Amino acid sequence: MGSSEDSRPHEGKYGMKKYISVIGAGDYSETTAAAAEVVGSLIAQAGAVLVCGGMGGVMEAACRGARKSGGVTLGILPGLDRSEGNSELEYSLCTGIGHARNLAVAASGDAVIAIGGEFGTLSEIALARKSCRPVVLLGSWEISKDGDLPDGISTAASPEEAVKLALASI
Amino acid sequence: MGSSEDSRPHEGKYGMKKYISVIGAGDYSETTAAAAEVVGSLIAQAGAVLVCGGMGGVMEAACRGARKSGGVTLGILPGLDRSEGNSELEYSLCTGIGHARNLAVAASGDAVIAIGGEFGTLSEIALARKSCRPVVLLGSWEISKDGDLPDGISTAASPEEAVKLALASI
Amino acid sequence: MGSSEDSRPHEGKYGMKKYISVIGAGDYSETTAAAAEVVGSLIAQAGAVLVCGGMGGVMEAACRGARKSGGVTLGILPGLDRSEGNSELEYSLCTGIGHARNLAVAASGDAVIAIGGEFGTLSEIALARKSCRPVVLLGSWEISKDGDLPDGISTAASPEEAVKLALASI
Amino acid sequence: MGSSEDSRPHEGKYGMKKYISVIGAGDYSETTAAAAEVVGSLIAQAGAVLVCGGMGGVMEAACRGARKSGGVTLGILPGLDRSEGNSELEYSLCTGIGHARNLAVAASGDAVIAIGGEFGTLSEIALARKSCRPVVLLGSWEISKDGDLPDGISTAASPEEAVKLALASI
Repeated sequence: MGSSEDSRPHEGKYGMKKYISVIGAGDYSETTAAAAEVVGSLIAQAGAVLVCGGMGGVMEAACRGARKSGGVTLGILPGLDRSEGNSELEYSLCTGIGHARNLAVAASGDAVIAIGGEFGTLSEIALARKSCRPVVLLGSWEISKDGDLPDGISTAASPEEAVKLALASI
Repeated sequence: MGSSEDSRPHEGKYGMKKYISVIGAGDYSETTAAAAEVVGSLIAQAGAVLVCGGMGGVMEAACRGARKSGGVTLGILPGLDRSEGNSELEYSLCTGIGHARNLAVAASGDAVIAIGGEFGTLSEIALARKSCRPVVLLGSWEISKDGDLPDGISTAASPEEAVKLALASI
Repeated sequence: MGSSEDSRPHEGKYGMKKYISVIGAGDYSETTAAAAEVVGSLIAQAGAVLVCGGMGGVMEAACRGARKSGGVTLGILPGLDRSEGNSELEYSLCTGIGHARNLAVAASGDAVIAIGGEFGTLSEIALARKSCRPVVLLGSWEISKDGDLPDGISTAASPEEAVKLALASI
Repeated sequence: MGSSEDSRPHEGKYGMKKYISVIGAGDYSETTAAAAEVVGSLIAQAGAVLVCGGMGGVMEAACRGARKSGGVTLGILPGLDRSEGNSELEYSLCTGIGHARNLAVAASGDAVIAIGGEFGTLSEIALARKSCRPVVLLGSWEISKDGDLPDGISTAASPEEAVKLALASI
């Protein structure tokens, strides 16, 4: 976490910090990793707290970007063993509830950014919307109902647009 | 549960019964309800156990169909109050974990049939695949990744085809 | 479930069946196992559904007793693999949430009987009371607060007394 | 979080910070509140992160003590609404899984201190031990098995002794 007042998270809608959850798979391409790192960096620069599932891949890349920019990263781990978490976590929680921790990952963000992703990510997108959190997709799943993008989900063409949309939605 | 040997659930892959989870929203059109009731009836006729989230809408309609055909219905409720369950449940469980019970609903089926559905249903589709359960979509979400239907998910044009595909996938 | 009308579960307080959760450890002495089997048998004879954590030890012994007496047994498994369940389960659910499924085990009983038990059992006793379910202890933990047995918890000296107290508390 | 290097959490056994979970009820006496505040303060002075269930009572009092001493407080909330958390949380997580979040509260501490407490606290004590976390009791439940205090649980006579025992057990 940054030590100066300038890098402190902004006040959010509850008079608290802003939290953005970054979701994505443990396996990923170089392109996805690079995008995740930029997203993490921009979240930190905006003074928001980065929440994630605490594991590798997109989660770790986003955390790396956030930490390089002086941000705070929180990892919500599926298991009971803290050492499973990636090395870019400022704080980690051990939930012990496996994939069901995806609800906590989704709901602990005031907004959620999905980068690439497999089925775990898709579940987090859905659980985020079930919990009324706005979701921004960046090179992630194509989801539609009767041909339309569902309510509360937007798509971004770049890391910059993703973070901008997420911050605007809080 | 049916009292005759004929309506007993078949042996499944673990030497146990076959379980099929039916997922869908509490709100639904008449068309969706009718489809859910036929799906439930066909599951019961095949001797499989019907698992669901225990609430109204598609869940209740599917259970009604199953019960009319002498089948067993299990409801995995989100709350701690058994009386929240629909009246077509043979057995109900109180999980107390809210939307996180969607993992249990998805994973307790050897196969999953999604009928219509909102975000809760989408999360169950994803959690089913995360848990390696085959999923059949019937008038449900359109999901793709780079333009392709994801692995392990098939689409059915009718209740009959949905149950047939689900049984074949177990 | 028994095939005759006589062994059908009674109507419970919500116009539904009565459910009794039996909790206890996977490791146990012969004495504990014998007690659990009698408890299971008496639950079945009373027409109540036996709920448990689905694993071995006390859970399996109680289920064995219930099945021998024609009762229904439901197992709420911690993992995603149905084959982990003991062989005396009529129905099993895969929750995937590890020890957190102890809440579902406790809350899915209208009353709870604890037989022997380790820390998992202690957590279920506590979660049962947190969910307002009455608890009967049979050779289980000694728990007190300022020297008193907590509200809603009673102790039984025999399997017969345990089931009698549990049924009376629903 | 403290702004100086001196108040930074120590390195723990995984090369990470030390985390101590403080558990206790939302309702409490003045004496319990005072003890909780001292415990929180001493945790912060030792540079450890204070984890709790995020609500009022003992949780809030412990957080207040920690914040006054420049420490970091993490709240793991039962619901989906961040505004439910007490005002002394530096960071909060929304789990949406109700009492099942007690597992995450217990397991996210490298050690756990129980102060007073009702059934939720008792469940956390048990889940902590189930997850192999050492537990220190301060004016909390009296728990025994065959007359003995269970393994991994110690009792403290003062807030100072409680924090000392907890730190020594990590």
